[in-house]
Amino acid sequence: MGKLAEAVRDFAAAHLSGPGVVAVSGGPDSVALLCALHEVGAGPLTVGHVNHRLRGEASDGDEAFVRALADRVGLRCEVAHLDPRPLGGNKQAAARKLRYDFLHTLGGWLATGHTLDDQAETVLHHLIRGTGLEGLRGIAAVGPVMRPLLTVGRADVLADLAGRGQSCRTDASNADPGYTRNRIRAELMPMLRTFNPRVAEAVSRLAEQAAEVLDGRDDRVAAELAAAERPRAGEVVVLSADQPLSRDAVRLLWRREGWPTDRMTHAHWRRLAALTAGDYPHGIGLRRVGRVAQIGRGL
Amino acid sequence: MGKLAEAVRDFAAAHLSGPGVVAVSGGPDSVALLCALHEVGAGPLTVGHVNHRLRGEASDGDEAFVRALADRVGLRCEVAHLDPRPLGGNKQAAARKLRYDFLHTLGGWLATGHTLDDQAETVLHHLIRGTGLEGLRGIAAVGPVMRPLLTVGRADVLADLAGRGQSCRTDASNADPGYTRNRIRAELMPMLRTFNPRVAEAVSRLAEQAAEVLDGRDDRVAAELAAAERPRAGEVVVLSADQPLSRDAVRLLWRREGWPTDRMTHAHWRRLAALTAGDYPHGIGLRRVGRVAQIGRGL
Repeated sequence: MGKLAEAVRDFAAAHLSGPGVVAVSGGPDSVALLCALHEVGAGPLTVGHVNHRLRGEASDGDEAFVRALADRVGLRCEVAHLDPRPLGGNKQAAARKLRYDFLHTLGGWLATGHTLDDQAETVLHHLIRGTGLEGLRGIAAVGPVMRPLLTVGRADVLADLAGRGQSCRTDASNADPGYTRNRIRAELMPMLRTFNPRVAEAVSRLAEQAAEVLDGRDDRVAAELAAAERPRAGEVVVLSADQPLSRDAVRLLWRREGWPTDRMTHAHWRRLAALTAGDYPHGIGLRRVGRVAQIGRGL
Repeated sequence: MGKLAEAVRDFAAAHLSGPGVVAVSGGPDSVALLCALHEVGAGPLTVGHVNHRLRGEASDGDEAFVRALADRVGLRCEVAHLDPRPLGGNKQAAARKLRYDFLHTLGGWLATGHTLDDQAETVLHHLIRGTGLEGLRGIAAVGPVMRPLLTVGRADVLADLAGRGQSCRTDASNADPGYTRNRIRAELMPMLRTFNPRVAEAVSRLAEQAAEVLDGRDDRVAAELAAAERPRAGEVVVLSADQPLSRDAVRLLWRREGWPTDRMTHAHWRRLAALTAGDYPHGIGLRRVGRVAQIGRGL
């Protein structure tokens, strides 16, 4: 068994029990994942494929390739034709939403072929955009979408396919420099590798550490908020005013209530954490009544 | 008062009381810092300069420039001639050590001209080398070395000098692509700016967030280690083996004992945190005895 299949076997043993779906675009990552999941006996497996028809004959060629591959290994193949263009907005984002919505309807777990390099590129993309520490979490290996290859580099994927004598499709839009993500892959990553050939691993480890630290913080913040909260009065949140809250705790509260954060400034968060009475954006008010603080609309 | 001087005034009011030293190489950052500290009345101020004599006439030219500048603004100037070459090893690192050792002898606080761009370059350098979340802290604005310009970009430094009609020296070795740091400045940063012109600010904010989260974690890790530790047996550390420790706690322990970390792998840290008996690098062993774990040399 190859190195990639071993990683997939260990991942499947830990996280993929019972029937599930492997999303296969026809590109190297998802094809290698399909072969490995099939080899290690995960499933019963269904192959899921979405033809967005954005690249004409190439899209139909991908679909035919995936159908033939599923047929050859004897797996059920579910294909949807979902064109994101009528939806308007960002075409790539709309396509992604359509794709995942469909794939999740197929039942069981859903696995995709995201690799260590995808993780590194995602983290760098967030870093460049300035999403802060939160963005360094990158993508999760385990969750609503399972990513067995997230510790496997793209070079190992190609080596695995070569070892199997398995062909795959090439998505020409991956070379379009109009997409930031493609420029990160084609320009930034090669430059970073001149500094450290194992930079993808370094960035990916960082993402793990960030997730670990932030998950720990999330747990503490939730506990802090729970300890301060009193039974609510209808739409109004009631908090003990005995001591100030952390800014993270009031941020969590605000998001949980579904209040918009767009006009909340640094100063607003600070005043809110100090439980300072007054008016906040979007009609939210804070009132002190005895030893509690009431927060809500129309106060 | 210019924007840069305002930042320095606020920083000085919060962190620089009484007499102090400003380290001036003659380059733009330190010259702008000197001018601003002088303008806002920080001090009494001493100008500190170290001539490492690594660049022949250029080094002597820097020294003459700094002496003349101090003289013009009426400040005491202390200069040391410290050649790092006889020390062997990494020339830049040795020069830095000699320089700071000397500057700290001059008394009072010590301020350097590190900018927002230095911070971003440092964080990226750590990111590329794979130093993990710890490395994202970057450099501290407040500490044994004070850095009033750490929130000021290099472009603002140059604008400030232009506004003052103040000249400065250029260090030709900053253009030497043999130094990783110079390649980060000259090649990587310009590429990243094509993605986001304010990438230095984004990276620098990330460093602040990382420092905040990690400082909180450090406190908790120290408490965790203290709770697990039993009275030591001479050179041997004794820990309660009732439950595993976090990796951060065993890292803290390892560093505290002064044991080298260079050969500690990811797997070593994981085994150590699980208090797994066995041999670790540099002759350190872990032994389980009843409900405690002993860790030290020659076990």
